[in-house]
Amino acid sequence: MSETGLPTNWGRWGDDDQQGTLRLIDAAARMRAAAEVRTGHHVSLARRVEPVRLTTGLGPVGSPAVMPAGVLQVMNFTGVNPAAMTDTLVINTHNAAVTHLDAVAHMPVDGHVYPGVPLRDAVTASGVARGSADPFGAGIVTRGVLLDLAPGGGSLPADRRIGAADLDAALDRAGTTLACGDAVAVRGGWDTNRPLDEPVPGLDLSAVRWLDEQGVSVYLGDIGDARPASFPLPVHHVALARLGMPLVDAADLDRLAEVCSAQDRSGFLLVLAPPRITGTTGLVVNPIAVF
Amino acid sequence: MSETGLPTNWGRWGDDDQQGTLRLIDAAARMRAAAEVRTGHHVSLARRVEPVRLTTGLGPVGSPAVMPAGVLQVMNFTGVNPAAMTDTLVINTHNAAVTHLDAVAHMPVDGHVYPGVPLRDAVTASGVARGSADPFGAGIVTRGVLLDLAPGGGSLPADRRIGAADLDAALDRAGTTLACGDAVAVRGGWDTNRPLDEPVPGLDLSAVRWLDEQGVSVYLGDIGDARPASFPLPVHHVALARLGMPLVDAADLDRLAEVCSAQDRSGFLLVLAPPRITGTTGLVVNPIAVF
Amino acid sequence: MSETGLPTNWGRWGDDDQQGTLRLIDAAARMRAAAEVRTGHHVSLARRVEPVRLTTGLGPVGSPAVMPAGVLQVMNFTGVNPAAMTDTLVINTHNAAVTHLDAVAHMPVDGHVYPGVPLRDAVTASGVARGSADPFGAGIVTRGVLLDLAPGGGSLPADRRIGAADLDAALDRAGTTLACGDAVAVRGGWDTNRPLDEPVPGLDLSAVRWLDEQGVSVYLGDIGDARPASFPLPVHHVALARLGMPLVDAADLDRLAEVCSAQDRSGFLLVLAPPRITGTTGLVVNPIAVF
Amino acid sequence: MSETGLPTNWGRWGDDDQQGTLRLIDAAARMRAAAEVRTGHHVSLARRVEPVRLTTGLGPVGSPAVMPAGVLQVMNFTGVNPAAMTDTLVINTHNAAVTHLDAVAHMPVDGHVYPGVPLRDAVTASGVARGSADPFGAGIVTRGVLLDLAPGGGSLPADRRIGAADLDAALDRAGTTLACGDAVAVRGGWDTNRPLDEPVPGLDLSAVRWLDEQGVSVYLGDIGDARPASFPLPVHHVALARLGMPLVDAADLDRLAEVCSAQDRSGFLLVLAPPRITGTTGLVVNPIAVF
Repeated sequence: MSETGLPTNWGRWGDDDQQGTLRLIDAAARMRAAAEVRTGHHVSLARRVEPVRLTTGLGPVGSPAVMPAGVLQVMNFTGVNPAAMTDTLVINTHNAAVTHLDAVAHMPVDGHVYPGVPLRDAVTASGVARGSADPFGAGIVTRGVLLDLAPGGGSLPADRRIGAADLDAALDRAGTTLACGDAVAVRGGWDTNRPLDEPVPGLDLSAVRWLDEQGVSVYLGDIGDARPASFPLPVHHVALARLGMPLVDAADLDRLAEVCSAQDRSGFLLVLAPPRITGTTGLVVNPIAVF
Repeated sequence: MSETGLPTNWGRWGDDDQQGTLRLIDAAARMRAAAEVRTGHHVSLARRVEPVRLTTGLGPVGSPAVMPAGVLQVMNFTGVNPAAMTDTLVINTHNAAVTHLDAVAHMPVDGHVYPGVPLRDAVTASGVARGSADPFGAGIVTRGVLLDLAPGGGSLPADRRIGAADLDAALDRAGTTLACGDAVAVRGGWDTNRPLDEPVPGLDLSAVRWLDEQGVSVYLGDIGDARPASFPLPVHHVALARLGMPLVDAADLDRLAEVCSAQDRSGFLLVLAPPRITGTTGLVVNPIAVF
Repeated sequence: MSETGLPTNWGRWGDDDQQGTLRLIDAAARMRAAAEVRTGHHVSLARRVEPVRLTTGLGPVGSPAVMPAGVLQVMNFTGVNPAAMTDTLVINTHNAAVTHLDAVAHMPVDGHVYPGVPLRDAVTASGVARGSADPFGAGIVTRGVLLDLAPGGGSLPADRRIGAADLDAALDRAGTTLACGDAVAVRGGWDTNRPLDEPVPGLDLSAVRWLDEQGVSVYLGDIGDARPASFPLPVHHVALARLGMPLVDAADLDRLAEVCSAQDRSGFLLVLAPPRITGTTGLVVNPIAVF
Repeated sequence: MSETGLPTNWGRWGDDDQQGTLRLIDAAARMRAAAEVRTGHHVSLARRVEPVRLTTGLGPVGSPAVMPAGVLQVMNFTGVNPAAMTDTLVINTHNAAVTHLDAVAHMPVDGHVYPGVPLRDAVTASGVARGSADPFGAGIVTRGVLLDLAPGGGSLPADRRIGAADLDAALDRAGTTLACGDAVAVRGGWDTNRPLDEPVPGLDLSAVRWLDEQGVSVYLGDIGDARPASFPLPVHHVALARLGMPLVDAADLDRLAEVCSAQDRSGFLLVLAPPRITGTTGLVVNPIAVF
């Protein structure tokens, strides 16, 4: 715990660490993940994104698109009588409509990024040098556990703050325990891609302390920090920036909850396999739960 | 087999089919995949892409980049004393440096795309309406088998054409069998991102007939169609366009081969989880092999 | 006149011509332009474009933008404590909200572009090789004449078709004559950036014959081809593609009309100075009338 | 003059001023500009930019491009059997290969932009609110005068610093005088798009004081700030940021010098007509000198 009373992993794995809580995924965690695989059925935890067509040349005036868009698409001209059809995507990674994985450098605190690197050394106009999403490029595989805060397909009230006791209760309902290195998928039944002045539920500091105490490796949620915000932001400023815990923002956990409920289970093998692109602040991701 | 003597799945699953050979992944295939998972260790089969920095404003003249680039990155300005660091990626999906998953509409034959849709109905300036990468958005999980054509970390000669007998031999070396719905990872020990006038090894038509006969669901390779090309292109015109078999282009299979060799195995649970973006001709992907 | 009875300049200046009717701007035309300059006052004939912000990272959900957008903007991150502020623009040149200058290759007829080049030779995935906007890069300076079809700040009815007699009448009202090499600024009092199924007024074939007979070098208008369209499109298929007459689409001529009316004149020195970027199908432009 | 001894226009035209030294272009300046127009001949002062092709889909590996690129081009797919050919340009405005017009907000000093606006109020992730290039959208027309520092097609030594006496001498050679509101085109015979660690000639503070004293409205040059840099940067920190004097960076003045020499004159009507796009830090421009 830092002097400020906030939990932190700065220095825990050295000053050059790039992995953060991914280091908690050890052989035992992988073995727990493997043990969850029985049928090979799977569920995607990603929201479906309909890209805005960046340019359709002479085409008709289109539908209104809410900007900033998550993904823009340009269909490419590959020649008259084209041999192949190709397109180009412009991906605005951290857009709230896009399921994505935050790198620890995404969120500075006190002018530094995990694990204490001055922001100017970590992020430049030429990309992210320290705390980037590079470690995610190898793929992340661990055991995931669904913590459903609004069971039965429900959704949390907009003004709800989730604390450690709520997570305890959800884990109890899940009928399992967490071990160090597991990932959690926290479902509030929300799509938080809403105007910033509208309230959304989220975690409080006690919940993030709980994640730390449980040894959670990755936080994945359809909720994260609440709005109106209270600072420091429990999920982005404490879990991501201080604990070095990668975050999957804007996941869609409704189908996962249905499958878990139908199969009376809450654990699965989680695969996070974002594009293997270096030097970024985060990457679009399609998390897969394998049963 | 079509009138032309080429294998085809046009019509096999109806005129509206969007899934192609993904339909071969049934409960038994998933169960075979599940059975491969023992330790939870994993390997990424994606090439690492260092993005070109699209615009660094006033920055120094940079290093030469070979265009067309696979991925361009723009670091975003999020305000003075920024609360967060974000960036935007421009992804040229079918670039030969980028591991990606081809949708069946990527490659028309005779003015049509799988399973016989006129190109003008399938692809418009507003994106791909038929034969897009949409079915990949749910994630693809099946059993994968490594077929190493250049064991021991070798690489094929540039003028080598791979036929059915070569695949048979590789499968024999693999010490396993294929069943309908399995994916294959075909390693030639190559990075084919080279000038188009330089030769690269690839599959011949007999190899693609072999894939069809084995009921392969997904082709994943560090080699595909040879250069100089012979038409129809076995992999892109026959496997992708006629059989509706999704292709992972430009995979990196060296590490997979090392792990398989060290563990004396060749099967694994394969996860393909490209970004869940609709209406595209293909998507960047980071294939994960889970052991 | 071609065999089809349509006016054409294909072959008039050779098979390799890239200039089209810009060749009509001779020393006499320039001298006429110079003679219009008396006070140095000027008017922009460009519509103001508010760019869509491509990516504002974490920012609030924005306003609806009508897609396809004309211009997208990304603010660039240039470092912590930035020394300079920069941005990047994505310009969708031919968007109907953007005042732009069409190159002759923009519009093929019968699979060819001016002056008879097969489309496949003119335009490739690597840009425009023949009939591009390159000649505009030197700047275009000639005498411009306002032809106001809806004097007094009016606007044409949506179903109005403009013919030669209308242009004659407007020229008569303008109180001047045209000479070979002059440009015309044709005002209908419209912003035609509307859904394609809504009617807009435009020129008929007799009007384009009139432009040809007058030796017009550049057509600039707030109207062009009418909707619903009749084929061949008089302005795009005949004036641009057959006569090789560069077009300024989507001009804003209201202020020009006010100034001309107030000063009881209709001639001016016209400057077209699009960005000097090579190999394009057209370029954004801010036409300036100097008095 | 500010407390620091540097010339400044902060406050000269109020705290809300957006025009800077463009305010110096009065009726008399316009009349001087008009008086320079005799034949209507013209010269472009823009460098030609060959865009990098952003994505050519399946195309061959291309030529190396030096990044960051000034302009990227994507050819657009507009449908099978396309009715029109279109493309999209990505313009990195402040790239040193691109002739462009700097807005005053481009360069903050002491955390403020002209005329003393806190940077955070002036520039946000949603574009430039204060000190943007918006005033340029109307077009800029004034008298321009060539100051050729390397007559006869020469070029300055790389380590040369230009002072007030050099500008006086060049003006003397030009055989004319400057009046308040004129623009200057300062030719050093350089293309400064070179690695930042290579020396380039430029102006010193005495030269910028001279520009201020002469009442120059716009600085246009093929040289600007020297490298290695001395701070404050005379052109960007003093002329642009403190005087509010718009800058045309990276002009090409060789042809202008030839024409002026051949015609034994140095004055011309200058037209700056960048795209009329709002909220930017600067805009690509093709300056035109009319004779």
